[in-house]
Amino acid sequence: MKPPSRTGSVSVVPKVTEESPPPRVGIVGGGQLARMMAESASQWGLALSVLASRTDDSAVATVPHFELGDPNDPAIVTPWAEQCDVVTFDHELVDLDLYATLEAAGVLVAPSTAALRFASSKVYQRETLGAAGVRVPRYVVLRDYNAESIDAFWNAVGPELVLKSDRGGYDGRGVVMTSTRDDAHDAARELLEHGAIVLEEKLLLLAEIAGVVVTGHSGERRSYPLVHTVQSAGMCVEVRYPLTLDAATHAEAADLVEKVASIVNAVGVMAVELFVTERGVILNEVATRPHNSGHWTIEGCVTSQFENHLRAVAGLPLGDVSALHDHVVMVNVVGSTEPGSLRAALALPGVHVHDYGKSWRTGRKLGHVTVVGTDSSVRVRAWEGAEALGTSTTRETT
Amino acid sequence: MKPPSRTGSVSVVPKVTEESPPPRVGIVGGGQLARMMAESASQWGLALSVLASRTDDSAVATVPHFELGDPNDPAIVTPWAEQCDVVTFDHELVDLDLYATLEAAGVLVAPSTAALRFASSKVYQRETLGAAGVRVPRYVVLRDYNAESIDAFWNAVGPELVLKSDRGGYDGRGVVMTSTRDDAHDAARELLEHGAIVLEEKLLLLAEIAGVVVTGHSGERRSYPLVHTVQSAGMCVEVRYPLTLDAATHAEAADLVEKVASIVNAVGVMAVELFVTERGVILNEVATRPHNSGHWTIEGCVTSQFENHLRAVAGLPLGDVSALHDHVVMVNVVGSTEPGSLRAALALPGVHVHDYGKSWRTGRKLGHVTVVGTDSSVRVRAWEGAEALGTSTTRETT
Repeated sequence: MKPPSRTGSVSVVPKVTEESPPPRVGIVGGGQLARMMAESASQWGLALSVLASRTDDSAVATVPHFELGDPNDPAIVTPWAEQCDVVTFDHELVDLDLYATLEAAGVLVAPSTAALRFASSKVYQRETLGAAGVRVPRYVVLRDYNAESIDAFWNAVGPELVLKSDRGGYDGRGVVMTSTRDDAHDAARELLEHGAIVLEEKLLLLAEIAGVVVTGHSGERRSYPLVHTVQSAGMCVEVRYPLTLDAATHAEAADLVEKVASIVNAVGVMAVELFVTERGVILNEVATRPHNSGHWTIEGCVTSQFENHLRAVAGLPLGDVSALHDHVVMVNVVGSTEPGSLRAALALPGVHVHDYGKSWRTGRKLGHVTVVGTDSSVRVRAWEGAEALGTSTTRETT
Repeated sequence: MKPPSRTGSVSVVPKVTEESPPPRVGIVGGGQLARMMAESASQWGLALSVLASRTDDSAVATVPHFELGDPNDPAIVTPWAEQCDVVTFDHELVDLDLYATLEAAGVLVAPSTAALRFASSKVYQRETLGAAGVRVPRYVVLRDYNAESIDAFWNAVGPELVLKSDRGGYDGRGVVMTSTRDDAHDAARELLEHGAIVLEEKLLLLAEIAGVVVTGHSGERRSYPLVHTVQSAGMCVEVRYPLTLDAATHAEAADLVEKVASIVNAVGVMAVELFVTERGVILNEVATRPHNSGHWTIEGCVTSQFENHLRAVAGLPLGDVSALHDHVVMVNVVGSTEPGSLRAALALPGVHVHDYGKSWRTGRKLGHVTVVGTDSSVRVRAWEGAEALGTSTTRETT
């Protein structure tokens, strides 16, 4: 497919007319998010090309076209991107300067690098959203080791602190929790070897919740229902719909998601993770792509986050984000010492198994299960499904 | 994957233990049924290999492994089948003798060639099911042209007759409707050039309905809810759930589906198409594979017919066949003179587009749309979706 002419502006809508075929979407990265995008695209006939790092990347088995190479190598990325009508992302661990150069050369990148920066730099995210009036945890940025700053912050909000690398973290990587002053200093020194860090207060959480929104090139935005998320060691283990919160807190959370989404302005799907605390609803993290907290939408909503992400970046009409069921629970399958049994999981009624096709490794996200239904017993079956598949995580006893 | 040891019996369950990986399923044929099987298999991690005839076959873009070649050439099929743990089918237009030879050599074929014969030979189907007490249309089999037989049958049930080729027909191909004696003779002479034919009475139909059932190697069987089907020129154009029939007729139809399924005994999914007439419920056709009348189950049921077909042939537990919604309507997209607009279809709320990735050709089944909901207005949106995509079919005005 010949790419349409472009103007160099990153907010241009792909040149799709009623007569022209839908654009070819390029996805940087071949992980499970790309795989689930490809599973959706196959159904409704959208053309995809995945830029994967390895032939055993999760998405490679599922897409008709893939290219192998380093997503941060201009010699690989530039010719590949020029064959696509729009470029989007499976992850945010990319060289933003390279993709900004492509944008300047007229390649349509969605989300734009301006939006991606919120997800790829925790310093930029905290500083920019904090300055815009979004309630974030109390934090301090360190670019070099500074004992006095750490002591002052520890005295103000300690003894428990959260230290985060500015870049490169995900699923709990690049994040350290400390509970003593000495540990905070040690962790800061270690993380600072890889660049700037953010020190944050550790909040007392009443709940963790998340909102997934999808935004079109025109600015049209739709918000999926908010969900309850359960984390363990920094990794999402469970997502539950519906959210059970008092109406005022629910509204406060929804407003915060909208506010963050309008500031970040990421074309495609983005996720906003929130803390519910006694001080109100506070921003945790932002992801400018389909997100684990939205996997439940595959079976749970009229249009999945993956379909809506592709519709949005391709300049196609956004789909209905309504929930289809009263109760939906998703549980991640995280590698334990050895795989479980697909047979045992499929024997459980209504368990939808998602297997990312990745090699088994302890601590690795390998798949998820979703159960939909009319009452909260779906949670029990979802956990039974994940446990049958050998997840290393354990359900909350609440 | 090394094939498990086999005993030569076609009713052997694949040797899957809790510890072993699920078997690799080989699919003969790369059409849209194989594509939709592959879309399902990608989600839950079942390994597939498709034996396709052409690189532009529908399923080729979606499966990680495919082989190109004539599905009736032993030199192609035999080594391919031996790399699979079980062989199943996208269509029934195969050389049964070849596959029976493979079965005798120990290859697990599901459905078995004994079951496939019901779908691949209309003569065998009518004779065998009729002899077993299944109510079928009045018919006569001709292996050579015989004017007296045609006249006698025409005098008994004419003036309208249906003539069907024993083999090779689908979607209305190989079927001729006649309304005069001369036309019946002409059509018989023409069809007989390609082999035996069945002459049938043309029934006055109150409704056309269908039942999809799934059967495991153990004989366990589950029946999806019956649906109303709408045909045009021998091709299915619309499927509606729920079925609105009086309780007695509904029960009679369900019993007939069960009876046919137990006689045919096809491991995997099979479809039974029925006529509702003033003389009761009468068998129309049998298909021993996922079927157009079951496409609605992708969004409409807990487990789709494609997932259940693969579960069954792979010896995995069968999934729940319950409907998830009060109303579900599927409308086929059949090629008109030129393609419609994906953009326009996606702009309609709740329209699930399925595009088989086939080149556009007038009269060809190119995709389908499904809409689920709480009332019968889903039918209007399903038709609007198919019309936006350029279907050549028109909705019933009833």
